[in-house]
Amino acid sequence: MTLLLNTNDTDRIDAFRATFARDLPDVTLVTPEEAFDPAQVRYVFTWLPLPDWSMFPALEIVFSVSAGVDQFATLPPDLALIKMSDPNNTRMVVEYVLSGCLACLRDLPSYAWAQRHQDWKAAPVRCAADTHVAVLGLGEIGCLAAEALRDIGFQVYGWSRSQKHLPGVTCVTGNEARDHLLSQADIVVCLLPLTPETRGILSRETFARMKPGASLVHVGRGAHCDFGDLAEALGRGHLRNAVIDVFDTEPLPEGDAVWALPRTFLTPHIAGRTDAQTGAQNVATNIARHKGGLDLLWQVDRRKGY
Amino acid sequence: MTLLLNTNDTDRIDAFRATFARDLPDVTLVTPEEAFDPAQVRYVFTWLPLPDWSMFPALEIVFSVSAGVDQFATLPPDLALIKMSDPNNTRMVVEYVLSGCLACLRDLPSYAWAQRHQDWKAAPVRCAADTHVAVLGLGEIGCLAAEALRDIGFQVYGWSRSQKHLPGVTCVTGNEARDHLLSQADIVVCLLPLTPETRGILSRETFARMKPGASLVHVGRGAHCDFGDLAEALGRGHLRNAVIDVFDTEPLPEGDAVWALPRTFLTPHIAGRTDAQTGAQNVATNIARHKGGLDLLWQVDRRKGY
Repeated sequence: MTLLLNTNDTDRIDAFRATFARDLPDVTLVTPEEAFDPAQVRYVFTWLPLPDWSMFPALEIVFSVSAGVDQFATLPPDLALIKMSDPNNTRMVVEYVLSGCLACLRDLPSYAWAQRHQDWKAAPVRCAADTHVAVLGLGEIGCLAAEALRDIGFQVYGWSRSQKHLPGVTCVTGNEARDHLLSQADIVVCLLPLTPETRGILSRETFARMKPGASLVHVGRGAHCDFGDLAEALGRGHLRNAVIDVFDTEPLPEGDAVWALPRTFLTPHIAGRTDAQTGAQNVATNIARHKGGLDLLWQVDRRKGY
Repeated sequence: MTLLLNTNDTDRIDAFRATFARDLPDVTLVTPEEAFDPAQVRYVFTWLPLPDWSMFPALEIVFSVSAGVDQFATLPPDLALIKMSDPNNTRMVVEYVLSGCLACLRDLPSYAWAQRHQDWKAAPVRCAADTHVAVLGLGEIGCLAAEALRDIGFQVYGWSRSQKHLPGVTCVTGNEARDHLLSQADIVVCLLPLTPETRGILSRETFARMKPGASLVHVGRGAHCDFGDLAEALGRGHLRNAVIDVFDTEPLPEGDAVWALPRTFLTPHIAGRTDAQTGAQNVATNIARHKGGLDLLWQVDRRKGY
C-alpha cells in the first residue's frame, strides 16, 4: 500500500514524511524521484494534477495540498478527491481578507500610488460601519471571513450557490441577487471556488455592475478574473483600488502588465499556506478512516467541483 | 459674549455655524476675517494656536478642533484648554490602526515595494495570534485600539504613563517596562500625546531596542519621530516595514526624503477627522456647562499636556 507524495515543496516535505512515518507506519511513502511500483499506489497527495492518472490502476484517493481543487477538474470521476482543510490556513486567509478590506477602506493602495508621485491629497475618511462588503463564495473560508468582517463592524453580505445562514450577514443566492449585491457593495471579496460557472466571473460586465469607487479583494483563483478588464476598470477610475493575491500565471512573469495595475496591491499567492503537520495529519486521518470503512472527510463533490 | 471660530476648513465651517446658531443662540459667532471686538471674545474654537493670545483679555476657554493638543503648549496656563472627543473620529483612528497593523502583519508595504521591482518573493505567513503588538499611549484612542487589536486576535501590550487595566491586554508603565515591551513586539503602534517627555521618542535608540523584523505604525505626531533615524532603521532592514500618518511638516513637501522611505506606507494625516457636527456640539455643550457653573468636559491637564 503506497502513498505517492508529489510535491516540489522542499520546505515542507520533511514534515510530511515525519507525520506519515509516525501515523501511517504500514503505508509506503514514495516521491516521484524514487523507484516505485505504480500498481501499488493507492493514494496521492499532490498540489498539481499528475500528467497521466491511468498509470495508477489501484489509485483510490487523491488528496489536494490546497483548499481549492479546480486544478483536478480532469481527474477521472470515480476517484475520490479530498480538499485541504487546515484551521491555520483558513485563519491566514481570513486575516488576509481583513487586511485587504481594511486597506481598501482606508485607501492604502491609492495612497501608495500617490506616494510614488509625492502627491499629498486626502480622501474623505470612511468607516467600516458605513461600508458594504460583498463576499462572493461562502465556503468554509468565506463564512469565517464574512463573520470576521462583520465583527470588525463592516456591513457584510454574502453570495453563494446554496443558501447560507450567518448571524449578522445578509446571505443571498442566485444571479439576480448577486448582481444587486454587486451594485451596492463598496468592497467585493472573491473567495469563490473555480468552476466552469465561476471562471471569468470578474469580468467587464461584473466591474460595470459594481458601483463607481468600489474596491476588489481577490483571493480566489487567477482564472476568475479577466485582468485586462480589471486594468480597464481601474484605469478609468471606475474601481477605486484593489488587492490581488492570485494570477493567471504564477509566479507573475516579469514584464506582465498586471504588475503595473494602478492603485493595486499585488501579493505573491500568500493569503494562506497549509501547515505541513496539519496537512499530513488530515491525510493520515482520512487514510485511516478509509481503511476502517468510514466516510471520508472534506470530500469534494465532483459534480459541483468543490 | 463672542466665540471666535478660527479655521480655514471651508468644508466644515457651515456645519459649525449651523450647530452654534442652533445650540448657542446668545453667543456671537465670528471668524478672523470679520470685524469684531477682541475684548468680547470669551471662547476660541481653533486647530492652530493664535499668534497673540493677549489680544483677548476676556478669553476663558480654548477649544481644540483635534484630540491632540500639543500645538497649544504656549497657551497661557490660566486658560482652560479642551481637547476634542468625537466617537466617530476615535473609531476612524482605531480602524486606521487595525488597517496599519494588518498591513504590516501581512507584509503589504514590503510587497508593494517588491511590486515596483516586479519581484515575486513570498515571505512566511504570520498569524495575528502569534504576533505581539505594543501600543504606546493608552488614552481614549489607545485603549480602544488595543481592545480592537485584541479582538482580532493579536497579542496586545500597552504602555502608558499611568497604569491602565484592559481585559486581555497586558498594560505596563515606566521606562524599563517600555523598553522590554519594545524588545518583544512585532508591531509597535505610537498613539502617544506629544509632550516634552514623548518628543523624539521614536529615535535611533528606540528602533535599536525593537527586535529585528519589527514594524512601526505611527499615528501620533510628526515630532515623536526622528525620520532620519527611521530611514536608517528601515534602510538597513532592521525594521521590516512601517505605516506612517504624521510628519514633521504637513503637507509633506515635494522632494522630502520621507516620501521614499522603503517598505513604508505614507498617508496624508487621515487616520481620523473630527465630525463637524459632533465637534461643534461638544463645544456648545461645554459652553453651556461653563455658563451653568458645571465642570468642563474633556479638559486638558495643562501640567501633563494632555
